[in-house]
Amino acid sequence: MFNIQPIAQDWLQRALEYHHTLTKPPGSLGYLEVLGCRLAAIQQTLHPRLGKGAVVVCAADHGVAAEGVSAYPPEVTAQMVLNFQAGGAAINQIARAAEAEVWVVDVGVKAPQPLSPGGPGHRVRQGSGNIQREPAMRQAEALEAIQVGAEAARAAIAKGATMLAAGDMGIGNTTAAAALTAALLGLNAEAVTGRGTGVDDARYGHKLEVVRAALARAQARLGELSKADPLAVLAELGGLEIAAIAGVFLAGAEAGLPLVTDGFPVTAGALLATRIEPRVQGYLFAGHRSVEPGHTRQLEALGLRPILELDLRLGEGTGAVLSFPVLRAAAAVMAGMATFSQAGVSQTGKP
Amino acid sequence: MFNIQPIAQDWLQRALEYHHTLTKPPGSLGYLEVLGCRLAAIQQTLHPRLGKGAVVVCAADHGVAAEGVSAYPPEVTAQMVLNFQAGGAAINQIARAAEAEVWVVDVGVKAPQPLSPGGPGHRVRQGSGNIQREPAMRQAEALEAIQVGAEAARAAIAKGATMLAAGDMGIGNTTAAAALTAALLGLNAEAVTGRGTGVDDARYGHKLEVVRAALARAQARLGELSKADPLAVLAELGGLEIAAIAGVFLAGAEAGLPLVTDGFPVTAGALLATRIEPRVQGYLFAGHRSVEPGHTRQLEALGLRPILELDLRLGEGTGAVLSFPVLRAAAAVMAGMATFSQAGVSQTGKP
Repeated sequence: MFNIQPIAQDWLQRALEYHHTLTKPPGSLGYLEVLGCRLAAIQQTLHPRLGKGAVVVCAADHGVAAEGVSAYPPEVTAQMVLNFQAGGAAINQIARAAEAEVWVVDVGVKAPQPLSPGGPGHRVRQGSGNIQREPAMRQAEALEAIQVGAEAARAAIAKGATMLAAGDMGIGNTTAAAALTAALLGLNAEAVTGRGTGVDDARYGHKLEVVRAALARAQARLGELSKADPLAVLAELGGLEIAAIAGVFLAGAEAGLPLVTDGFPVTAGALLATRIEPRVQGYLFAGHRSVEPGHTRQLEALGLRPILELDLRLGEGTGAVLSFPVLRAAAAVMAGMATFSQAGVSQTGKP
Repeated sequence: MFNIQPIAQDWLQRALEYHHTLTKPPGSLGYLEVLGCRLAAIQQTLHPRLGKGAVVVCAADHGVAAEGVSAYPPEVTAQMVLNFQAGGAAINQIARAAEAEVWVVDVGVKAPQPLSPGGPGHRVRQGSGNIQREPAMRQAEALEAIQVGAEAARAAIAKGATMLAAGDMGIGNTTAAAALTAALLGLNAEAVTGRGTGVDDARYGHKLEVVRAALARAQARLGELSKADPLAVLAELGGLEIAAIAGVFLAGAEAGLPLVTDGFPVTAGALLATRIEPRVQGYLFAGHRSVEPGHTRQLEALGLRPILELDLRLGEGTGAVLSFPVLRAAAAVMAGMATFSQAGVSQTGKP
């Protein structure tokens, strides 16, 4: 479905050796050196460069919101999409500060009219099914939603994005992300269910029950979920925006761009993308670690160390885009620093 | 010596209340909200803004380098100052990526000619004394070095800096920073001595002995060091660049700017500044947490949570400047986000 090149391992090794010739004690830039070397390998150069970034914010509603799993009413999804378009949301301010463009895609909001007409992508259906009781969507719809995300990613790249993040908006989507993550990683509901935008104890207990019921329902249809076809799991449990986010990462990897994950629902999309096409993994960077407990399980499964740990739990791509300047700096260090011999600086020796 | 306004506590409270009216679940931007509210209080507005930043990199040599406490020979200090001026060092690339200007000040490099002629500030003397055996400098020199840093900070602010970091360069300066930090915080050498740019086990043991000897020597002259006059402690143990860094923070606080700390030697300068004028503390932000163990003790003493944790141990202001975009985003969120009522978004309610 997507033609993704593997990361050139020899470039990783060359980049590391080159980093140790730059005018600083070897390793003294810590994780920034690892990031720089990975960017070098992705771009196949010792002098990687990153310019403008983009974030594709995918929005959809969730039938499971009817179960009362969120602290917010479902109409907030549509209201926030309008807020993104008006430039009033957190992601708009953070993207401006971090030199990134915001693309908003209504892939499945439950509202009379599509909310992102004229942009890339389109609405596949008005909200997903209530995963406690029925499949989230048909497999054909899941595939279509993936293509919607891919289309938006390609549009952002065509407009000059050099790195790509995905963002999410969908009341109820941490419930879908929890079910999907548990299914893909073979975990139980407790390990991946958190408080989302901030539910109280009673509603949290109920959310846990809903995730358990959704997993049991899907398992009855597909058998052991961690071994089932990821597209079938997505159709059973996933949100439309999570499918689109997987599409953003699949198309981004196909284009050879560094890809940055955000919080729990976005990283569920990234996990799904790697199950569809394992080579996506080599392009992924974790923008931040969210306070959702399941997010840490996702990062472990993807082998990603988060760039930022700021206790964010908003989504929208905020934590991903906040990390863009760090990635840009990691590339700039390799692109612009002098070597010891160029600068005439003495290396380790006896004083 | 410096006229610093206290932070307006009522602005902190107003900022927090305002943050909770913005279109996101309250608290969902985690530590970014705390940073934004502190910036609001510093600027006394609900819509703080941060533009260009600056980093003042203060360089000096250390007589104690003769004891073999560093993995690098002392001539590297001068070589790196030239590298900063040529734009080839890590701080130059990171500053460009983070929209910050680099100011380099030779406040005490041991080299025939001053290395930053024409810039603000000047060289106070060619390197400090060997603190294992003699005072680092006279108190008049310590005061002069503080003024050199202050002068450079004022020049950067006059050229449009809206936030200010300090950076350090000085072979041997983690030894001076360890002695100073132990003295100011009443800790022993073990708690604050690390491997700097990367000494091996044998040299680390020797470095520890040198710090112990320097502390014993200073204590014999000044009595209990944590209760002694901070300027006297600085003159006994400090480096000239650490004195200048204290001056950067003192003048930055006087100008009412957000001030960003870097690693171990820079935070020693920040600690010193707060001992000279406690009101500096309200303006300080910790750019990152370095791998030097003593850095964590400094951050605890200053009550600062680091913005980044990337295992850096380079200095030069790199970790401080890397955090500038996060601070800029924290301000931008408050300056630009819509409130729930402005955007017509529903607040928490029963779905």
